[in-house]
Amino acid sequence: MITVAVDANGADLGPAEVAAGAVAATREGVRVLLFGPAAAFGDMAGRDGSIEVVDAPVSIAKAADPARAVRSTPDASIVQAAVAVGEGRADALVSGGSTGAALAAALFNVKRAPGVIRPALAVTIPVPNHPFTLLDAGANAEVRAEHLVQFGLMGAAFAQAVRGVARPRIGLLSNGEEAIKGTSLVIEAHEQLAARVAEGGSYDFVGNVEGTQVTNGVADVVVTDGFTGNIALKLMEGVSQTMLTAVRAAATSSARGSLGGLLLKPALREFRDELDPERSGGAYLLGLRKLGVVPHGRFSRVGIRQAILVAARGAEEDVAGRTHAALQDAGALRRVPDASGSASTLASS
Amino acid sequence: MITVAVDANGADLGPAEVAAGAVAATREGVRVLLFGPAAAFGDMAGRDGSIEVVDAPVSIAKAADPARAVRSTPDASIVQAAVAVGEGRADALVSGGSTGAALAAALFNVKRAPGVIRPALAVTIPVPNHPFTLLDAGANAEVRAEHLVQFGLMGAAFAQAVRGVARPRIGLLSNGEEAIKGTSLVIEAHEQLAARVAEGGSYDFVGNVEGTQVTNGVADVVVTDGFTGNIALKLMEGVSQTMLTAVRAAATSSARGSLGGLLLKPALREFRDELDPERSGGAYLLGLRKLGVVPHGRFSRVGIRQAILVAARGAEEDVAGRTHAALQDAGALRRVPDASGSASTLASS
Repeated sequence: MITVAVDANGADLGPAEVAAGAVAATREGVRVLLFGPAAAFGDMAGRDGSIEVVDAPVSIAKAADPARAVRSTPDASIVQAAVAVGEGRADALVSGGSTGAALAAALFNVKRAPGVIRPALAVTIPVPNHPFTLLDAGANAEVRAEHLVQFGLMGAAFAQAVRGVARPRIGLLSNGEEAIKGTSLVIEAHEQLAARVAEGGSYDFVGNVEGTQVTNGVADVVVTDGFTGNIALKLMEGVSQTMLTAVRAAATSSARGSLGGLLLKPALREFRDELDPERSGGAYLLGLRKLGVVPHGRFSRVGIRQAILVAARGAEEDVAGRTHAALQDAGALRRVPDASGSASTLASS
Repeated sequence: MITVAVDANGADLGPAEVAAGAVAATREGVRVLLFGPAAAFGDMAGRDGSIEVVDAPVSIAKAADPARAVRSTPDASIVQAAVAVGEGRADALVSGGSTGAALAAALFNVKRAPGVIRPALAVTIPVPNHPFTLLDAGANAEVRAEHLVQFGLMGAAFAQAVRGVARPRIGLLSNGEEAIKGTSLVIEAHEQLAARVAEGGSYDFVGNVEGTQVTNGVADVVVTDGFTGNIALKLMEGVSQTMLTAVRAAATSSARGSLGGLLLKPALREFRDELDPERSGGAYLLGLRKLGVVPHGRFSRVGIRQAILVAARGAEEDVAGRTHAALQDAGALRRVPDASGSASTLASS
């Protein structure tokens, strides 16, 4: 049975909502270690032996400097949850909603997978018929070319293991399709990705993809730095929200439109549900020894439950091991010094 | 009477379509110098004395290296059109659709406005009730902080002169609202913009804006580098297109939905028209001695006509002069050596 360590602090709706999501997840056969303010969890109806509460009321979800808070607050709930995963008492980590704190706690306590330079945040965008995984969605604002290469391969391994894509197509987000388009960083990453993917592996590199293309299904994995990725992710959210609002406004602008909107409602609701970020469970932390999942802060118990289930599924499907294998196949692991200290490092973090 | 130099090469629909747009623009009181393959212009019905054709069949719209093509092809239509503007025979430049060629030709022949380090491409995004001007939308993939500062002030001057925004709010696109969020480049630009805008001027700096905020009307001018800006622009295009397609699919997925879609059609059409990029005329080249406008390559005569009219309006409203004044007020002009050669340059291009 898979065990998921869940931090109940940091969610907009409070720890009781996270606890309710955890209880719901246990009904699907997942065991949960729940860290947070036990007094705030409410009655946790339906709770059984597959959920274990660890009273950890201290929260660093709002800390301005998450890395410092993690180091100075060993009793914080997210730190205790990450330690449980690092020590093997749990197989995956789910945080209540603060991405910065989850990232820092996981980096210090779950630790990077061997050969991974930087963990990345991956988000699967639910475009109807053309879902794609975007990474880095915000963990690393500034990166080097070899980081982007690793992001692409980690994303491909994730797409295979969790999304079931047989042969993921990796694309590099840029301002033009041609290999010479982009910043010098992107041009260098393009060359390296093309060379490494050509060496083998069960994935393809489709080259640069432009903003107009990402929603058209040209790539299963879209790679970029955490600055651009975070802006892209939030832009897609903002634009789709604005469009839905505008369609609703159009639908109520006249009697004829109102009737039309009413008749369209079930179809639009289904479409909106399809886009609902709670369905995806949130953002994935890739490149650690174990998988981490960060639900959106505003998620209800539905999204929290989903986050726990996808974390469990990722652990079952061994995302971490497959990621390592993908990087190894492509020769994109950072070489670490062996016992004799002879190997050089590809790059420092 | 304002004269606009128009290059008819490079548009997807061909030179005759551009010529038709030019003829339509002359009916609004604009004089046009039309450069391109005269033999391909067709009959140009309605043409009168306010349009002058200069036969210039050579096109560099498809050149892989626009800067080199501009230097080596003085008889290219876009080069001749830019020279006409540079020499004062026309007040503004409109290209048929190749942004790269228009940028290079304008840079060499219209030349940068005094004190401007880098021209930028500005696009006004027609979000219903909350339009905003995004720049740089693709002219400079890599920039420095002082470039971003100038982009913000140029965008503000443009928003005042062309869009009639009394006191434009400048925002800096980033991956978080806090001043410390972003790449080191963005953090530095934030500091500089805050300091320079505080010095006075008729605009405000609202700080960092995130992707979710840009469509919410928090800023009239959104500043970023040309790499991120180009991706953002195309993402917004792609996502809104995908959403409209999905709404249409939802509307036809059932008999009930089909009827609803039919009733909604007029309202949705109006909304789609509002988003139509042909309405805005295209992208503006800011920071040159004269204004340049680059319609989208796929524009029909409707969009070309609009591009010529907005270029004429920009010339009438003296966008170039106002931009210079805005930069000067904020102390953000690059100092050029005076006759004695004593002043240092703020930065090289």
